[in-house]
Amino acid sequence: MPDTRRSFLRKSALIAGTALAGARMTRSAAAAPLEIPPTAQQPGRPIPATGYGVPSKFENHVARRRTDVFVNRQNWSDWSMTPLQHQHGIVTPNGLIFERHHAGIPDIDPATHKLVIHGMVKQPLVFSMDDLLRYPSVSKFYFMECSGNTLADWTKAASTTVQQTHGLLSCAQWTGVPVSWLLDEAGVAPDARWVLFEGADGSNHTRSIPLNKVMDDVLLVYAQNGEMLRPEQGYPARLVVPGWQGNMWVKWLRRLKLGDAPWFAREETSKYTDLLANGTARQFTFVMDAKSIITSPSPQAPLRHKGFTVISGLAWSGRGKVARVDVSLDGGRNWRAARIDGLALDKACVRFYAETEWTGEQMLLQSRAIDETGYVQPAKDALRKIRGVNSIYHNNGIQTWLVKPDGEVENVEVS
Amino acid sequence: MPDTRRSFLRKSALIAGTALAGARMTRSAAAAPLEIPPTAQQPGRPIPATGYGVPSKFENHVARRRTDVFVNRQNWSDWSMTPLQHQHGIVTPNGLIFERHHAGIPDIDPATHKLVIHGMVKQPLVFSMDDLLRYPSVSKFYFMECSGNTLADWTKAASTTVQQTHGLLSCAQWTGVPVSWLLDEAGVAPDARWVLFEGADGSNHTRSIPLNKVMDDVLLVYAQNGEMLRPEQGYPARLVVPGWQGNMWVKWLRRLKLGDAPWFAREETSKYTDLLANGTARQFTFVMDAKSIITSPSPQAPLRHKGFTVISGLAWSGRGKVARVDVSLDGGRNWRAARIDGLALDKACVRFYAETEWTGEQMLLQSRAIDETGYVQPAKDALRKIRGVNSIYHNNGIQTWLVKPDGEVENVEVS
Repeated sequence: MPDTRRSFLRKSALIAGTALAGARMTRSAAAAPLEIPPTAQQPGRPIPATGYGVPSKFENHVARRRTDVFVNRQNWSDWSMTPLQHQHGIVTPNGLIFERHHAGIPDIDPATHKLVIHGMVKQPLVFSMDDLLRYPSVSKFYFMECSGNTLADWTKAASTTVQQTHGLLSCAQWTGVPVSWLLDEAGVAPDARWVLFEGADGSNHTRSIPLNKVMDDVLLVYAQNGEMLRPEQGYPARLVVPGWQGNMWVKWLRRLKLGDAPWFAREETSKYTDLLANGTARQFTFVMDAKSIITSPSPQAPLRHKGFTVISGLAWSGRGKVARVDVSLDGGRNWRAARIDGLALDKACVRFYAETEWTGEQMLLQSRAIDETGYVQPAKDALRKIRGVNSIYHNNGIQTWLVKPDGEVENVEVS
Repeated sequence: MPDTRRSFLRKSALIAGTALAGARMTRSAAAAPLEIPPTAQQPGRPIPATGYGVPSKFENHVARRRTDVFVNRQNWSDWSMTPLQHQHGIVTPNGLIFERHHAGIPDIDPATHKLVIHGMVKQPLVFSMDDLLRYPSVSKFYFMECSGNTLADWTKAASTTVQQTHGLLSCAQWTGVPVSWLLDEAGVAPDARWVLFEGADGSNHTRSIPLNKVMDDVLLVYAQNGEMLRPEQGYPARLVVPGWQGNMWVKWLRRLKLGDAPWFAREETSKYTDLLANGTARQFTFVMDAKSIITSPSPQAPLRHKGFTVISGLAWSGRGKVARVDVSLDGGRNWRAARIDGLALDKACVRFYAETEWTGEQMLLQSRAIDETGYVQPAKDALRKIRGVNSIYHNNGIQTWLVKPDGEVENVEVS
């Protein structure tokens, strides 16, 4: 801990501890607080012969949730959101990684699953999962964000929680094979420029990705955070397209086709394009620009104490590493640099912290990410000025949380 | 991929793919392998309104398992082991992190849990979980290894799987508060040299740790891999003692006492000491020395294909970073450097890979870790020469897997 923080804590005098009466307290001299709890007086639950662990029953409230802003008549094309207000560090546990499906979750038997590479290649190839698992593999931490994250808040502060505003964001260690290795095996034709990726789900989810991105860093992954993919994450194989919108991370991957032009699939024409004020649309807006969010305090993590207060959140950029995160307590008038904790990896989430002494005044909390290219996360109004308010996707505007004197937190707009 | 590997893959000619008939295959021209699977012709399962995800039903075999070497009459003081043969990357998912309990798993309500700091401090303090969560926190990846890992194999190759030989090893991102910050709040007396840590479980699990280690890098953690600790991992609070034996990572932590000498608790006298051949015992053998294990191939991950073969495993050191991992195919006569994949973090697992062209010959696979201090993981015989065969703990000898011509793998000894 830097000396400034250490002395700050000291100045705050026992900010988080309650002083016990008497120095050099011994176990017997302080019977009350050291009372032996019931759990220490009896054996606990035994270990089952075999099993897969689950969270504590006291953590049942920590769960993915569907959107509460839009009501779907069916729930096959739907999404569930990560409870960022409860996340610690940078890893999203597999049970809480957000979901986005266009025709529900297929249950695919890996023993029969096949992946085909065809089109503009020298030698079309078909792979079983057993084949793919024989390749050398790489493991990388990358954030994954749906380009529709924060979509409900384009025109006004509509969402009520951080899970709803920003919960289409997760970060994991992904393990798999660079797609470039598989394409090398097939032999890419000299004129090939694009690759089509198709999923084995009911929507036949399909996206075109430029070949140079594919050759650069796109992975075919079969594992996340140390174990095989979860069904809702594309088991047994999905794409990881570092820094680019989640919609391109095709799940339940069954087909790669090489071509010399994009395919203009549904999800890159009528959807996942950004309608501007002048009636034209931005297309192939692949990269997720730098963004950040304060997860605590937030509406589901209100302030319950005055005095020493830790503000914490996540930042990420699809263009590389996060270089800095700033925090404002007054709606963007004044900014201070936050502390980035631990690892700041390429195209992965970073965890940031800022501390303040809260005396019960109203605060307008904001954070902004600055990435290694120098890009600064914009204010919502600045974003709207350029992109209008017809957009659904790519809302990376600065979020504002109003902290009220009672510590409750509300999603608001400032201008 | 380095060019050498690329050309090696090329030379192996379609090592993992099956060539399809006809170049420039189109979807219709290659009806058989591109047949549209049933999952792509109907909607899948919808998303529940709220939930916590679980693995695919096709992964039910991936589970923690109790030891099959020792049979306990009860299972309160027991352990379950991580299925390393199925792990990818360096993160162990929370549901698969190994367990070791001395009196079963207590279910502790965080709303009532208390932590006390007392003994040689200026001001004894008691903390609620709410207090502890108000501190700034840090998140770190560290391996955790029981000092009893590989205990069944001290005298001979007794275990039948890598889960049984090395499955008391896991690696996670841990989030919490440096214990030094809490001790700074209480004010450590000048003569204090040791800290006692006690758990709220039925065994009142208790260990003494030198104060300088505690002030250096010991963490009180409440989260693992992004979410609150699992009950079997010490929910709601445990110790993380980077690089030191798992037994010291006291779970369900309820008491810290500062003193000027160790307490000689049960788990540091009659247990967790190493009986030497001359009848004396090593005590306070805290550090887990450098170690490595090939997880694939291994008895539960046999070779099913000849030709291009990837050998993969994990390496770690309690003294810092892993600098190099060597792999031998002939029982330690010849060694080659393995490729360390991605992050090589301080006191965390690293993933290594080595590739070979297997033609069906018998192999004696070994790996050895070399850490940044220059320490080289020893052969089992070298270890026995110094430590005798009475030991239970701290077996970091080099493991040998016999790969037979049919690809089956067996735990063996070489000398």
